[in-house]
Amino acid sequence: MRRAPTHERSARALLSRLAEPYDDKVQALVQQIGVVDLVGRVAAGDPLPGGLGRERFQARWHAAAEIDEQHIAAALGLRLLVPGDEEWPEALDDLPTPPWCLWVRGPLRLDQVTHGSVALVGARASSAYGDEVAATLAFGLAERGHAVVSGAAYGIDTAAHRAALAAGGATVAVLAGGADVPYPRASAAMLATIGQVGAIVSETPPGGAPARMRFLSRNRIIAALAAGTVVVEAGLRSGARSTVKHARELGRHVMAVPGPVTSQVSAGSNQELRAGAEVVTDAEEIIEIVGRLGVDLAPYKQGGHEAADDLDPQVRRVWQWLRPRSSVSLDDVVVRAGLGVGEVLAALGELEARGLAEQLLDGWQRRGGR
Amino acid sequence: MRRAPTHERSARALLSRLAEPYDDKVQALVQQIGVVDLVGRVAAGDPLPGGLGRERFQARWHAAAEIDEQHIAAALGLRLLVPGDEEWPEALDDLPTPPWCLWVRGPLRLDQVTHGSVALVGARASSAYGDEVAATLAFGLAERGHAVVSGAAYGIDTAAHRAALAAGGATVAVLAGGADVPYPRASAAMLATIGQVGAIVSETPPGGAPARMRFLSRNRIIAALAAGTVVVEAGLRSGARSTVKHARELGRHVMAVPGPVTSQVSAGSNQELRAGAEVVTDAEEIIEIVGRLGVDLAPYKQGGHEAADDLDPQVRRVWQWLRPRSSVSLDDVVVRAGLGVGEVLAALGELEARGLAEQLLDGWQRRGGR
Repeated sequence: MRRAPTHERSARALLSRLAEPYDDKVQALVQQIGVVDLVGRVAAGDPLPGGLGRERFQARWHAAAEIDEQHIAAALGLRLLVPGDEEWPEALDDLPTPPWCLWVRGPLRLDQVTHGSVALVGARASSAYGDEVAATLAFGLAERGHAVVSGAAYGIDTAAHRAALAAGGATVAVLAGGADVPYPRASAAMLATIGQVGAIVSETPPGGAPARMRFLSRNRIIAALAAGTVVVEAGLRSGARSTVKHARELGRHVMAVPGPVTSQVSAGSNQELRAGAEVVTDAEEIIEIVGRLGVDLAPYKQGGHEAADDLDPQVRRVWQWLRPRSSVSLDDVVVRAGLGVGEVLAALGELEARGLAEQLLDGWQRRGGR
Repeated sequence: MRRAPTHERSARALLSRLAEPYDDKVQALVQQIGVVDLVGRVAAGDPLPGGLGRERFQARWHAAAEIDEQHIAAALGLRLLVPGDEEWPEALDDLPTPPWCLWVRGPLRLDQVTHGSVALVGARASSAYGDEVAATLAFGLAERGHAVVSGAAYGIDTAAHRAALAAGGATVAVLAGGADVPYPRASAAMLATIGQVGAIVSETPPGGAPARMRFLSRNRIIAALAAGTVVVEAGLRSGARSTVKHARELGRHVMAVPGPVTSQVSAGSNQELRAGAEVVTDAEEIIEIVGRLGVDLAPYKQGGHEAADDLDPQVRRVWQWLRPRSSVSLDDVVVRAGLGVGEVLAALGELEARGLAEQLLDGWQRRGGR
């Protein structure tokens, strides 16, 4: 007899070989009788509650039961996390259908990086604009200690991971296939680096293929791991929007970067803005949203300051009629400003004192300002 | 003795020569004793309440009192509107400091076009993106019977007016200088056309120069005339943002077009989005906001539809493992999908019936879909 925790651990590993986490029927069974009982009944050929036949697991059973997960994980440099482990990110427990277990590679501890982390997601067929913005945001976030979570896909995901790495920051890649399966192939080198300094995470067991529905299923993990999800650039049908949907359902912060309305690949992100996603234009604004309340405030953006901005309206009214390179007579200023002579003289006096006007022989001239 | 309405009319015309509408002290006087009494006292040299000396109007009085406004307006093809006139747009009465009068040129009746009209405003130093969007929005609005209100400035304003004209629609140019003063000079030809088929409007009397504070003052008229204001593209310090500020204060609809966060000239419009402006990406969305409630609804944007979208999750699970150009054996599908043989066969049957899968000699192949 193995110890119970080990039993739970190996039962969860085995279940991930037997059934897909997005299989609602199996999820219901797990909630009803638990993973250990479920796997035990399948192994013993005992009946299952709820009308799900043993047949459901038959095709995968033979191969799955023979796998020595501990050996495989060790050989591939992976560790297995199950709920209750110290490193298991509690954020995942918010999911209605949590992963049965996670395979992880890399030095980052998931329970430590997920707090305040940000998911940057978007189109695979991104534009140069999207790549630039993803990189700028990821760099700024990573530099300020916020982990960047993404899916290692082409386009926005890759730009985000690379920039986080370049900043020497933390980045987490959540894969649809096994954590040992570099996908897409072209990202193999980047994933190798993430495996050395960040974390690669998957609920799909080692060797598993990145199937279509596993991508959609994977997206809920990205949304749950991060404190907030930012759509950087996405077309109307982009898979990134499913991540946003999950983030919204989980009550996580949902943000989107504005993009040109003439760009197909910003149509989805702009649509998310219309649906209520918060507008973010730089890393500070994201941190203000996911960060500590009232502490991580983004500076309010304002344009350059002009000397005339500080003027009293009546003084400004006089100032506007002066010219920078020729003089205007006092009479002309009085008529143009539509003020009394006394008011105009007082205003000119103040402008002179501030270095914004100068009296010449034939009248007044503007100085300084723009 | 002239009739009272005529008296009020000429008093307002005269006042607009004597004082600037953005002069709070004079606005307060008008509210206190009315325009006719105010002008009468200035003419007679009688004292004014509230400590404002006659001196205030002295410099302009001589020239202003000699002007025959009726003659000048007729010669310039302008008409004078005062509150109470049938053509006076009631929308202007919402302003805390309404214009004293308006000079108008062109066949459009202001009281008729302002209902459902849209102000398109933005940067003078616009980008090709901004010009394109302004033109597309203006064309779409004008085509659907919504007048386009703007300020005839370079950049966004010009792109908006031109496109509204090209659509054969209504457009209103509100100028900072006199309605007879083409400003900027380069817009003279466009303004001539607007004067022939649209409307040129100003609160500045004929011949008046487009001074800096008159632009800011003019912006409140743009905001008030339109049912909603859209910032198409604006830098952080753009004057267009003052129009937005007025629109917000007036309780008008405030909208902004998302733009690249890497573009300085979209920084102000994106900032307006952060401040709560509604996100709009095309003319339909604007019309939905300013148009009739529940009638003018914009179509919800969605991407192309795929055959697999309609599938039951379990059937889709099977479908995702089929390939378009090679066949997969039934056993393989069963293992990959993690379903029972019966479930897979049922799913394959449905896929076949829908034309999404085909049974070959050695297995199953995907058909149709994307």
